[in-house]
Amino acid sequence: MLNHKVVLARSLAGVPVPEDFRVVDEPLPEPGDGQFLVRHIYLSLDPYQRSAMAGRHMTGRQPLGPGDMPAAETLGQVVRSRHPDYAEGQYVRHFGGWQEYGLSTGERTERVDPALAPLSTWLGVLGMPGLTAWASIIELAGVHADQTVLVSAALGPVGSMVGQLAMLRGAEAVGIAGSDEKCAIVTRELGFRACVNYRQKGFLEALRAALPEGADIYHDNVGGQMLADAFSVLKINGTVILCGLMERYNDPAKSKPLDLALPILKRAVMKGLVVSDFEHRRPAFEAAVAAGIRDGRIRYREDRAEGIGQAGAHFSRLMRGENVGKALVVLGPETTGRA
Amino acid sequence: MLNHKVVLARSLAGVPVPEDFRVVDEPLPEPGDGQFLVRHIYLSLDPYQRSAMAGRHMTGRQPLGPGDMPAAETLGQVVRSRHPDYAEGQYVRHFGGWQEYGLSTGERTERVDPALAPLSTWLGVLGMPGLTAWASIIELAGVHADQTVLVSAALGPVGSMVGQLAMLRGAEAVGIAGSDEKCAIVTRELGFRACVNYRQKGFLEALRAALPEGADIYHDNVGGQMLADAFSVLKINGTVILCGLMERYNDPAKSKPLDLALPILKRAVMKGLVVSDFEHRRPAFEAAVAAGIRDGRIRYREDRAEGIGQAGAHFSRLMRGENVGKALVVLGPETTGRA
Repeated sequence: MLNHKVVLARSLAGVPVPEDFRVVDEPLPEPGDGQFLVRHIYLSLDPYQRSAMAGRHMTGRQPLGPGDMPAAETLGQVVRSRHPDYAEGQYVRHFGGWQEYGLSTGERTERVDPALAPLSTWLGVLGMPGLTAWASIIELAGVHADQTVLVSAALGPVGSMVGQLAMLRGAEAVGIAGSDEKCAIVTRELGFRACVNYRQKGFLEALRAALPEGADIYHDNVGGQMLADAFSVLKINGTVILCGLMERYNDPAKSKPLDLALPILKRAVMKGLVVSDFEHRRPAFEAAVAAGIRDGRIRYREDRAEGIGQAGAHFSRLMRGENVGKALVVLGPETTGRA
Repeated sequence: MLNHKVVLARSLAGVPVPEDFRVVDEPLPEPGDGQFLVRHIYLSLDPYQRSAMAGRHMTGRQPLGPGDMPAAETLGQVVRSRHPDYAEGQYVRHFGGWQEYGLSTGERTERVDPALAPLSTWLGVLGMPGLTAWASIIELAGVHADQTVLVSAALGPVGSMVGQLAMLRGAEAVGIAGSDEKCAIVTRELGFRACVNYRQKGFLEALRAALPEGADIYHDNVGGQMLADAFSVLKINGTVILCGLMERYNDPAKSKPLDLALPILKRAVMKGLVVSDFEHRRPAFEAAVAAGIRDGRIRYREDRAEGIGQAGAHFSRLMRGENVGKALVVLGPETTGRA
């Protein structure tokens, strides 16, 4: 039996294209003592993976070269175990990478209860993107009921949760997204008060019109010109959560720097967010969000591709901003009948 | 009798030089009804005046052209009054500009009690620079005793007060200044734990050696590369007060932008400071600092020039970072024997 994985076909430059990736196969790995083999059901594609491929996401990492497999979270099922704490049939989330099967020692691996919420949500609104939104809006910004929250990439798993968590606390949410289609979903399905298409002519005027009294909080996934535009609608003493730099993940050289006069003149409070600091909040986050998913107060969109061979093309779409919701690759069925 | 004033001789470009300024004279102005004439004793020179001359300091202002007089705070004495609340002999601080005499209606004018502290300090450690430091360290950063505060331009009136207020709260202060001479004063006279000369080779290594455990708070007067260097010694979850952009007052085109990955990776809290927001804290600030000056716990350095004709040259030195302490021009004696 074979494991299919995606590796870089060449070093990346700028926005990725499908030809940057190729599928290779290898024999299915055998778990050693203390290991288990996970059959991947969902592969998570996230913008930070682009900067990780370039060796820029965390300090001290090397860029990936031809033949290297991108790292990523996957949701899957244990199919063979030589680990005392993980039985076959158990659903887990781990850093399995862009492949159909992956080994784990249990490190950076969490058990997932499929009764709590749909399996795929553990990579999205119930996963790292959702915890990021929780850390931003609940922990760092401490949103309260009379506030207005602005968020970019509003239909993505982080942005959609930023707005929805704000609304659960009684605040109002205004989104920014890359098409009228996305904006319609953000307002109609997710309940944001407004959503502004940043690709339209006159975006800044439309943003100002959507926020006549300004925003109390801006959650920034993007940096660059989007951050500058957001400062222009931020209230005096407003809060900015610095969380992502999407604008430059493809090409840092094209990044537009922040004019520090903007936060000074707005007396802004800016806070840098690294989601791994908030692991201790995961139980509270998961309980609240899983309940919200079950009772319909929390909604989400997914943009699915089928099969490991689509990972490169789907990731390329994501990095062009063409995804509509959380980008996932479906690698196999949720149940095989054996588990 | 004549009033001598300094005006721009030409539009400014880059770092100012003495030839950018010239002295003109005019008849001494007569106060109208509700006005009073102030004889200026001290003229305050501050880096922000450079960006104000360029029309960049506050939004909606025009750059100064040839013949325009720079605005500035002055400390002086009322010599003729047609205002019911201001008597001749009264000491005041107002925005008198680069000239020997100025009219006031009482707007943006404060009475100064010469018994509380030396007159010149009302433009420095007891004035706007000191209030800026108070707003930063006491109000926004909320310094406490087990912390270490890093400040650039450490011998300037803002920086020296940032460090000294931190020390009054039991914290430790580390400074950055532009010469070994300044650094020696910062440590020996002001009591900072350490001071690092940013013009030395290997500055960053020296800064790291001075802060082996990092800084909890960085007060930024400068922006640019200095801010990036400060981030490299900031503790995780540290605080950065964004207060000045000295690095670009002379020439914004040469400014080095902030890499937003730095505050994100440091989980920093950055706060923009505009000193005029803290007018309501001025009484508490003045009481504490005037007492500190009188009992010697608060020290300060002044860099004085004599005569209005020196204002341009003295300001040029300030904007090259060659001042040693608060830059002042002495325009006349503190007492004339008439008041």
